[in-house]
Formats: sequence, C-alpha cells, structure tokens
Amino acid sequence: MKNKLLVVGTMAYDAIETPFDKVDKILGGCATYIALAASQLDVEVSVISIIGDDFEEAHLEMLRKRNIDLSGVETIAGGKTFFWSGRYHNDLNTRTTLQTDLNVLMQFDPKVPTAWTKSEIVLLGNLNPLNQAAVLDQMTSRPKLVIMDTMNYWMDSFRSELDAVIPRVDVLCINDEEARQLTAQNSLVKAAKMIQQMGPKYVIIKKGEHGALLFHKEEVFCAPALPLEEIFDPTGAGDSFVGGFAAYLAQTGTISFEAMKSAIVYASAMASFTVEKFGPQNLETLTEEKIQQRLRAFDQLTKFEIDLA
Amino acid sequence: MKNKLLVVGTMAYDAIETPFDKVDKILGGCATYIALAASQLDVEVSVISIIGDDFEEAHLEMLRKRNIDLSGVETIAGGKTFFWSGRYHNDLNTRTTLQTDLNVLMQFDPKVPTAWTKSEIVLLGNLNPLNQAAVLDQMTSRPKLVIMDTMNYWMDSFRSELDAVIPRVDVLCINDEEARQLTAQNSLVKAAKMIQQMGPKYVIIKKGEHGALLFHKEEVFCAPALPLEEIFDPTGAGDSFVGGFAAYLAQTGTISFEAMKSAIVYASAMASFTVEKFGPQNLETLTEEKIQQRLRAFDQLTKFEIDLA
Repeated sequence: MKNKLLVVGTMAYDAIETPFDKVDKILGGCATYIALAASQLDVEVSVISIIGDDFEEAHLEMLRKRNIDLSGVETIAGGKTFFWSGRYHNDLNTRTTLQTDLNVLMQFDPKVPTAWTKSEIVLLGNLNPLNQAAVLDQMTSRPKLVIMDTMNYWMDSFRSELDAVIPRVDVLCINDEEARQLTAQNSLVKAAKMIQQMGPKYVIIKKGEHGALLFHKEEVFCAPALPLEEIFDPTGAGDSFVGGFAAYLAQTGTISFEAMKSAIVYASAMASFTVEKFGPQNLETLTEEKIQQRLRAFDQLTKFEIDLA
Repeated sequence: MKNKLLVVGTMAYDAIETPFDKVDKILGGCATYIALAASQLDVEVSVISIIGDDFEEAHLEMLRKRNIDLSGVETIAGGKTFFWSGRYHNDLNTRTTLQTDLNVLMQFDPKVPTAWTKSEIVLLGNLNPLNQAAVLDQMTSRPKLVIMDTMNYWMDSFRSELDAVIPRVDVLCINDEEARQLTAQNSLVKAAKMIQQMGPKYVIIKKGEHGALLFHKEEVFCAPALPLEEIFDPTGAGDSFVGGFAAYLAQTGTISFEAMKSAIVYASAMASFTVEKFGPQNLETLTEEKIQQRLRAFDQLTKFEIDLA
C-alpha cells in the first residue's frame, strides 16, 4: 500500500516577467508545484485548496491524470482563482510582486477529506498559518511527520498565528533570509538552533543557487544546488523542493536524518527542473529517466574521496 | 622525496577590525597564510616575497620552524613591510579597506632561488600580475601545475597585465564576484566556461560561506563550506584555501579532477580554521588530529545515499 501525503496550499494563476520572457497567465500556486513534484514518486497525494470556477478543467484534468487526489479542492461558483504577478530582476535572485489578488483565497476554510485524516505525512505549503493550523486540527491521528513551508509575509503580518503553528511542526523549511528574520540571528547555524528550540526537530534552510542545509540536533547536512547555465523562471522552485522532499520520505516510509539527506537531494533535483521552464511546465513532462540522470548529476557533483585516519 | 611547492605572494602586517574585536598589528600577507596552510602537509614549501627590516624575527622563526623555506624572501634594509588595514561589516561578508601602505612591495622584483626553478607546483598568490609573470619566467622547466589567485583590484587597474598571465596558468582560483567581473557573465557556469577559454583548464570559484565550485571541461564539483556558528575574522581565508589546495596536490603528486576534488575539501578545511581566530593564529597551532576531525566533519556534511538506477 502506498503511503499518503496530504498537502495544503494555494492553486493559482500567475503572471510572470523574467529578463528573458513573460507570461500573462500560467498555472501556479504552491500546492500545484508541490503536488506535481510529489507525483513523480510512488505515493498517494491529496491536495486541499480552493479555486474559482475560472480554473480551467484542462488543468484539473492534468493533475488528476498524475493521480493527484483533488477531493479536497473546493470550487467557489462565481469565484475567481487566486492570482499573483511578479517581475524577476536581472540576477533572478530578487523579485518584485506586482499584483496579488487573493480572490477565493479570502474565504479559504480547508477541509480534510475523511479518507485523509490519518495521513502519515502532512505538508503545510506556504499559506496563512491559520489555514495550516486548521488542517492539523482535523487530523484524527498525529501524522508521522508534519512539514511546513512559510515566507516573510507571514512573519511580518501573522507572527503570532505563525508562532502558534511552528511548535506543531516536525520539519520547518524556509529560505536563508526568512530564517534570519524569524530568529533575528545572522548566523544560519544559530538560526537553525533557535528554530529547533521553537519545536521543529528538523530545520531546512534553502539558499537558492547555493543549495540547502538540513539541521537536526548537532548534525548538519549540506546539499548543493545544481550549477545551471541559465535559470529561466525561479517561480515554484521552493515549492517543488519541499514537495519532492515530502514525497521522497513518504515513498521510503522512513523518518530519519539519513533519509532526509537523500530526500533533500531529490528535492534539489525537482527544484532544478522547475527553474528551467516557465511555471510548472517542466514538472508536467518529467520522465523517470530524466530524474535518474539528474540524481546522478547531483551524485557526481558532490562525491569525493579523502584519506581519513 | 617530497614534492616542491613554490609560492609567491605578500608577507605583511595587518590591522583588522571585526564586529567582535580589533588588532592593530598582526602577521598577514597572502604568502604567509598560503605557506602556513601548506605546511600542514608533507611537502617542501618555499616562499618568494619581500619584507622590511621591521619584520619581526620571531615571525620568521615561526615560519622556519614549520619547515617553510624563506631563501626567496628579500629583506630591504631600512624598508617597511607591506601594511594593510580593513574593517569588516556586520555580516562579515563585506569589508572596507582603511589603509594600504605598499612600502617595500613597490620595489618587489621576485627572484626564484636556483634550487626552486624546477618546482613541480607553483602557486601565484594574489599579487601584481607582473610579479606573478616574473616568477613563471624564471622557471627552467614547465611546472606540472601553475595555480593562480587574484582579486578585483588587479582586474580594475592591471587588466592587460592580468590577461597576459592567465593563459600561462592551469588553475585559476577566484571568488564569485571576481569571476563575474572578469568575464562580464552573471552565471557562474558561463563565467567558468569563459575562463577556461582564456587558458586555465581548471577554474575554482570560491563562494565564501557557500563553499566552492571546481570546473573542468563539462565536469563540476561542489564543495560546501563548513557551517560555522561564528566567523571571527575572514582575513586570509581565501589564501589558506588555495594554500591547502596546492599543497594537497603536491603531497599526492597526482594532477586530476578527482584529486582536485579532495584537494578542495582539504582547502575548505584550512579556510574554516583560519576564520575562527584573528589572522593566521589558528594555522600556527593546528594538529593532525584537529585536521582529521574537520575532514571527517566535511565528509559527514556532504555524504548521502540515493537509489540510482
């Protein structure tokens, strides 16, 4: 029997400008990227989200064809799907949000389908912490692992709500600047320690093109990002990362620091695919062969031998 | 018989301010850091440099005791040793140069001692490219490997001289911003390709706390930096890195991409020791046990298992 991965997050349409190109309307939202990355693995994935009736049937169909369970996706008749637009600057490391239309997201009240209330792994995508908490409240047994992503916006404007969810989480996955903001520590090592004191036993700090760090007690693991000649569109890289991470752990069924090391490498591979094309396009057409090839590239990239006494 | 590593670079006194502490006068200079890092290994190291007669005998004695050959160090009677002072900002990633007194460095005309004109490995420390070229000119046989470090200052003010040395080099070792400046490429992958077209078959791009990348043809290796809770003083980290790198290759006697991977990990260990104390103090008191312990930490930090088909 496959292990279950329950995901809560946004489904959206995005308009994106990069130094290379632009799109007016492309499938987006953290739950979309997470589910597409997770669907590369042998797990059962269910998404809890909310959309308007403008959400295209073809997009729902594409997700269903990848065996993503959408029974927890609520459609609001007459409602408009969450819309985000942003512009990436020349270095692609920074972006400006041009427009955020919450639309149906304003009335989001996540409901966990009965079949999913005992899921082994729950992934709280980057979302209002009240929505994240609501999903945990509905679980009828404590999941083996709760993974959470968040961002600076929730730290700025929903700090107390965020602080209430963090202790309920096993793995917090955020980027370097967010880790510094959350803890007021400049050193990432200190930031990770402080986050562990808040509750999460595992802390993942994403550093974009510089890879990711995994902290657990006194242990650290460092995964590189694949050095890419061109980054086409960074949108969704972090979501694909955490989706691949969660699904890898769900597939293996083992929760340990060692398993998480492998999961982070898989996660990095997913992120590296996402940034190569606009939106989640690359994730929709991945093959097992391409994934294996990329995992081998990560293996090559980091393996070394040194004489140890 | 031990392999020979010939080093050219500055010997200096530094005044350093960090957010934590300050020193008015501490041993410095790229050749000092390089030689101290290299002296941890089983190689013969010789330094070509220039000092004033204010250079303390105790410092020369300390270097000699570590079996560093100083026959190529010229002392100028009545001259003053090169002096640099700088202040590190709060994040320790950026610094302001407060004062640079070239002093005896203005009359530096490197002379390679006869016993060293056939050295297998030559390391051109960060220095005026004319001085770097002068050392290569005096080699009576082509070294197995020429390694070069440089910095933005030489790109700004001595570009044509720099461009004349780069094609004579096998390994160019620079930091990320310098690689971007040298090639006018934002992507480090593209920058490394362009540098290879200039001549060096191997390119090392140092990324400070984010580790280092090694490029050779289509191959890439990524070494992390050790995540440290506190960085006390970054001065000399890059010099210790390249010194450890060169000496590791000299000790093993093998020049290959695989050997360079190990050398970069050793190099990163040396840099991680240097930043823990002011100046080169930590390098002066290293033990084999401490080095082995740190190499094991690097091994732990990066090793992972993932199922590859």
